[in-house]
Amino acid sequence: MDFFDIVHARYSHKENFLPVPVPLNDLEKIARAGLSAPNGVNRQLTRLVLLPNREALASLSDLIEHGGLRSAPAAIAVLTTDETPPDGVNFEKEDYSAAVENMLLSAVALGYASLWLDYPWFDAERQKRAKEVLGAPDNYHLWATLPIGKPDGVGSRREKMPVEERLFYGTYGARK
Amino acid sequence: MDFFDIVHARYSHKENFLPVPVPLNDLEKIARAGLSAPNGVNRQLTRLVLLPNREALASLSDLIEHGGLRSAPAAIAVLTTDETPPDGVNFEKEDYSAAVENMLLSAVALGYASLWLDYPWFDAERQKRAKEVLGAPDNYHLWATLPIGKPDGVGSRREKMPVEERLFYGTYGARK
Repeated sequence: MDFFDIVHARYSHKENFLPVPVPLNDLEKIARAGLSAPNGVNRQLTRLVLLPNREALASLSDLIEHGGLRSAPAAIAVLTTDETPPDGVNFEKEDYSAAVENMLLSAVALGYASLWLDYPWFDAERQKRAKEVLGAPDNYHLWATLPIGKPDGVGSRREKMPVEERLFYGTYGARK
Repeated sequence: MDFFDIVHARYSHKENFLPVPVPLNDLEKIARAGLSAPNGVNRQLTRLVLLPNREALASLSDLIEHGGLRSAPAAIAVLTTDETPPDGVNFEKEDYSAAVENMLLSAVALGYASLWLDYPWFDAERQKRAKEVLGAPDNYHLWATLPIGKPDGVGSRREKMPVEERLFYGTYGARK
């Protein structure tokens, strides 16, 4: 599959997954792509936890109602820390986001669907319980869990604005 | 080039570029990949400004000392706004970061080098002047400028931690 075909084929799969296992080798390939994303000042603060089957996923998916994570045959949990030097910029969100995007594209490249599933972990109590389940250190945050698997049917796509409304030439608002 | 080869070939090119023009079609292909990145609640707040040649780039690169932007034959400026609904989460950083990562990978896919150049724009005075140059609305922020072109020589690479120190199995810290 051509690189640009992969980029444009990626979508946020919010529906269920088929109960088809994901080989560990595929998950590791996806995770290694995530860890090769650029990161602020080369501090490499992103950490990934592979949840390679339903057994490994059960305690985490029990915390939320989202169908995708509850049916996914595998997932990857994405954590970073906001620990920065006193004079340093906090690149936590940039770091984890670039890693997530690499992994979402990698999943498509290998024939899977995935989702940047973050909102359940914004809730403080659920964040705390998820970190306990994952055994994550206090100074790390769980930002996202990416369910990964073969989609059960064609997932829905959100409507997109015309590119011309977001892409300018030379100055903001200028058209081609 | 295989998708995973592209991911692992990407690096932050901090040195100079050759004075070889980048066809507008290539820049647009890169930008469209950026705009197809996932974004919070489908709000699509990321905006891109193509700076397709030195003339278009000059006023912006005059604001900073960075060699890469000063020698690049083209660049893309990346902006988002933090305007969110009263009860909404601000996904500004996640949105622009995913778009940037798509564009950095796209540049590699087309045979170019690039860089996530952000730190000059953290300075408030320079941010203000850059937004004037770009004609950006008050409520938008310039987060990054990506110089794009053929690298002048082999760029340096930062040393990376072993993947095993960042990739865990089932729980945080657990090895395979």
